[in-house]
Amino acid sequence: MSRTPAIQDSYPEDVAHCYGCGSLNERGYRIKTVPHGEGTLTEFVPEPYHTALPGYIYGGLIASLIDCHSTGSAAIFALQEAGIEIGSQPSPRFLTAHLEVDYLSPTPLNAVTLIGHVVEMKDRKVVVATDLIGDGEVTARGYAVLVKMPDGMVEALADS
Amino acid sequence: MSRTPAIQDSYPEDVAHCYGCGSLNERGYRIKTVPHGEGTLTEFVPEPYHTALPGYIYGGLIASLIDCHSTGSAAIFALQEAGIEIGSQPSPRFLTAHLEVDYLSPTPLNAVTLIGHVVEMKDRKVVVATDLIGDGEVTARGYAVLVKMPDGMVEALADS
Repeated sequence: MSRTPAIQDSYPEDVAHCYGCGSLNERGYRIKTVPHGEGTLTEFVPEPYHTALPGYIYGGLIASLIDCHSTGSAAIFALQEAGIEIGSQPSPRFLTAHLEVDYLSPTPLNAVTLIGHVVEMKDRKVVVATDLIGDGEVTARGYAVLVKMPDGMVEALADS
Repeated sequence: MSRTPAIQDSYPEDVAHCYGCGSLNERGYRIKTVPHGEGTLTEFVPEPYHTALPGYIYGGLIASLIDCHSTGSAAIFALQEAGIEIGSQPSPRFLTAHLEVDYLSPTPLNAVTLIGHVVEMKDRKVVVATDLIGDGEVTARGYAVLVKMPDGMVEALADS
């Protein structure tokens, strides 16, 4: 059985250094997001020091996971919309324009699962809703507005 | 000249382990937030690996800084409202219920400054707006709803 490739593994190398989701960032979280039914899925195991209150995950990590899971989800949804198989070509890359997180209850410092769904889809803009699940309970909800990275942005930033 | 104590240095020890702002988390960011005019101020220097695109800070760190800067700001505003000097007694502790971040432009991977202002203040709820400034430009804006941590919450979570 072949495993579904993660979207982050087909990000172009010049945009694969994000601390949250870049496969080339050796110090980062290197999250992996895959299609999951009509949505997307990311699993992550926090480190013991990623605490808020002792025994619970700090909110900044939760926001970070929702952010990078959302950019990955947007790329998956965009490829699916275009009928392109994940991994068959370099992935489009999305940037977060707006992020919202509702913290519903403390998230235990154990493995978490993020499930994403598309809320809105336009040519260059995707809106993704995310449930973050810890110990079987939705402990946080995310809402992110992602925009497709303009062609030549990396070069333009490098020159600025 | 005495330096204004940071609010995080008067968090009670049992709630001082947050990765973002706990003075007792040796692996964390240990941000320090102080009063600044009618608002609050946090300064932070990212590590070289905290990248989004090379040369720019990843969005998850920005969200994390805004989150912990907001909880600290809420505590400062609550103490000021009660006429209590920072550092004269253990600080109240606030939890984030809702966080929003608008990413306006890429934030250069240099020192950043966060400036917070109170938007709304009730007995147990504070709303904080934040400008995140990098290289002299506001590159992200935050909006956070903070609620005062209930008495006995740490003990209740430890027993659950």
